[in-house]
Amino acid sequence: MAQWKTVGNGMLEGISQVADLDASKLTVTLAKTLKPIPPHETLTFGNTMSDHMLIAEFDPESGWSSPEIKPYAPLNVYATSSCIQYGTTAFEGMKAYLGPDGEPRLFRPDMNMARLTRSVDRMALPPFNTDQVLALIKQLILVDRRWIPLASEYSLYVRPTVIGTGTGFSVAASDHATLCIMLSPTGPTSAPASKPISALAVSETVRAWPGGTGGHKVALNYSPGFLPLRVAQKQGYEQIIWLLGDDMKLTEAGAMNLFVAVARDDGGIDLLTPPLDGTILPGVTRDSVLTLANAHTARETTLPGLEETLHLHTHERPFTMTDLLRWSADGKLLEVFGVGTAVIIASIGKIGFKGEDIILPTHEGGLGPIAKAFRTRILDIQEGREQWKNWSILVNEL
Amino acid sequence: MAQWKTVGNGMLEGISQVADLDASKLTVTLAKTLKPIPPHETLTFGNTMSDHMLIAEFDPESGWSSPEIKPYAPLNVYATSSCIQYGTTAFEGMKAYLGPDGEPRLFRPDMNMARLTRSVDRMALPPFNTDQVLALIKQLILVDRRWIPLASEYSLYVRPTVIGTGTGFSVAASDHATLCIMLSPTGPTSAPASKPISALAVSETVRAWPGGTGGHKVALNYSPGFLPLRVAQKQGYEQIIWLLGDDMKLTEAGAMNLFVAVARDDGGIDLLTPPLDGTILPGVTRDSVLTLANAHTARETTLPGLEETLHLHTHERPFTMTDLLRWSADGKLLEVFGVGTAVIIASIGKIGFKGEDIILPTHEGGLGPIAKAFRTRILDIQEGREQWKNWSILVNEL
Repeated sequence: MAQWKTVGNGMLEGISQVADLDASKLTVTLAKTLKPIPPHETLTFGNTMSDHMLIAEFDPESGWSSPEIKPYAPLNVYATSSCIQYGTTAFEGMKAYLGPDGEPRLFRPDMNMARLTRSVDRMALPPFNTDQVLALIKQLILVDRRWIPLASEYSLYVRPTVIGTGTGFSVAASDHATLCIMLSPTGPTSAPASKPISALAVSETVRAWPGGTGGHKVALNYSPGFLPLRVAQKQGYEQIIWLLGDDMKLTEAGAMNLFVAVARDDGGIDLLTPPLDGTILPGVTRDSVLTLANAHTARETTLPGLEETLHLHTHERPFTMTDLLRWSADGKLLEVFGVGTAVIIASIGKIGFKGEDIILPTHEGGLGPIAKAFRTRILDIQEGREQWKNWSILVNEL
Repeated sequence: MAQWKTVGNGMLEGISQVADLDASKLTVTLAKTLKPIPPHETLTFGNTMSDHMLIAEFDPESGWSSPEIKPYAPLNVYATSSCIQYGTTAFEGMKAYLGPDGEPRLFRPDMNMARLTRSVDRMALPPFNTDQVLALIKQLILVDRRWIPLASEYSLYVRPTVIGTGTGFSVAASDHATLCIMLSPTGPTSAPASKPISALAVSETVRAWPGGTGGHKVALNYSPGFLPLRVAQKQGYEQIIWLLGDDMKLTEAGAMNLFVAVARDDGGIDLLTPPLDGTILPGVTRDSVLTLANAHTARETTLPGLEETLHLHTHERPFTMTDLLRWSADGKLLEVFGVGTAVIIASIGKIGFKGEDIILPTHEGGLGPIAKAFRTRILDIQEGREQWKNWSILVNEL
């Protein structure tokens, strides 16, 4: 029996002697026929799956099963399963890119694994050693490496998912679980990156709230937004900016973290994003933008297209629609953009609020200079053209 | 093509010409071997499934498929399905009882169907005519009627579930869905009804909030409570009372609606439950308790064991832990109980809050006179011994 690796709250000591996830026990069953790979220009986010997936199952008596790579196929899941009846799913989103050396790499996978541990814990699902998950992701990517698109800004999206598979209608934690890792070749975004998106600021429905699960990557954070998104789209907006509280704090944009760039009187720029107070997803791209902005200001690096003397003052603090309207009226609102693994950086060009639109300055190519600087640099790192703080990890070195 | 029945917000007019759910197209494939029925004393909530289930599938091109009753079995669901990745599940809980005439009946199924329509709508899932769902529930119960336990307080739990089965990782409404109706013979509660439960009042995690989904019966309301429940159970409590806001309003108890009975100076009793402000599930049992209390006070009925002159003053209004502590200190806090389809009525005997316990008066048999009156009367109606406002519907008359 492997030594159990407990997670944050130590809630699972009662089953601490069952088998942990063990990548060395991996078995591989290859698909008999491989699917044709579609031209990368036709790829949209998450609609094409590779040939294989990875499965491991948790049983409370024996622990985690030997993981298996096998042909991508439906799961046999009872409709009474916890994940279907009560929404016990935690997941991650990562991307594998091919570098100039032709080798696949992942971007800051340690951050995804730390967040997965917290999300699994929040759903009261059985924990596992995430080093083993990374080793399994490596094996799966190597089996399906022909699915990594060659073109820049295209990548192989990796979706590790942990679902509660305990059956019965008891309203309590699931004692069974399945880890399923899937791969999906994908383009840079669903919309062309060159075109800013429009977003409706919404306060009637609330994405996340203090004491809720907004700070975790769990399935249940997403479906409550589908109806409001449909309503916003009928009003001509592509996305939603989620507001919170009577003071209408901005929190996230769709499923993206949100940044606002505001001109300062001293010639610098305030770069604001809401703080990680439990209502905001601790995004990997969010953290990367903050880190790169601070590094630029500290002259540790020069972000592409920005003056090296430009001071980007980062702030993780709440800001409201009142702030946004004032900055806009004062001509200080430079850029608003969403960031996330799927989209990297998406400019927001118009924000609807109470029947009026806040219009952002337009820029050739769609992205403003701040958003473009981050997007260019992050892609340079993800695609292995630049190295920075060991953020890009060769899959072979996992 | 059947005429489409649109739901509340009319968001689905674009696909309004596809087939609606049609019970007349039902096909039945019986199990080759039937399972033995366990002794009813061994049944716990939701752990035993009957022989069959009902399935219908929605496709955006053709609408709802012909429904099918077939042997209970796992579903073939891709791990990329919306219900697994983003928590798009709406469901209902109902119970079929055998009456003294040996005929199965359901309790106020119209309320479940109206709520299911709202829940499906909130999840942006495809709508359907719930008259057809009731007709299908009838057929399924008749196929599996040998699974309805004969003993009083035992019943056949009915769980209609609608899940999003659209695949791909796009963060938007599912365009495919499956309706799955399952049957599970069950006992009166998981704990003996004769023993009051203990509950920890929790404010660090929040079950539901204004602008959220707490007023709908959707999967995602439940899993966020599993970790806090585990924490509460480690502290020796069986359930949680969910608090909301800085003033610590009481909202629900576990997955039950919450009632408090407080003595009035005029000899009457105030019966309080939180209002349906969007954070509270509009429970069928909750509504039944309020209706019966008002009928008792109006002398339209006399609830078992209560003085016919007793005035029960019902209030759907917020109340806080400060209120509860004051009522308890003044000796006016008579009873606290949770209500719901699964449990009917469950007395709460102890409430933990900030390291102290509020202890409720004890009663022989566990239930206080108010809780017992409602439990007895509701069971009498559910099991067909009493008729009241046509709440108990013969399955054959659906």
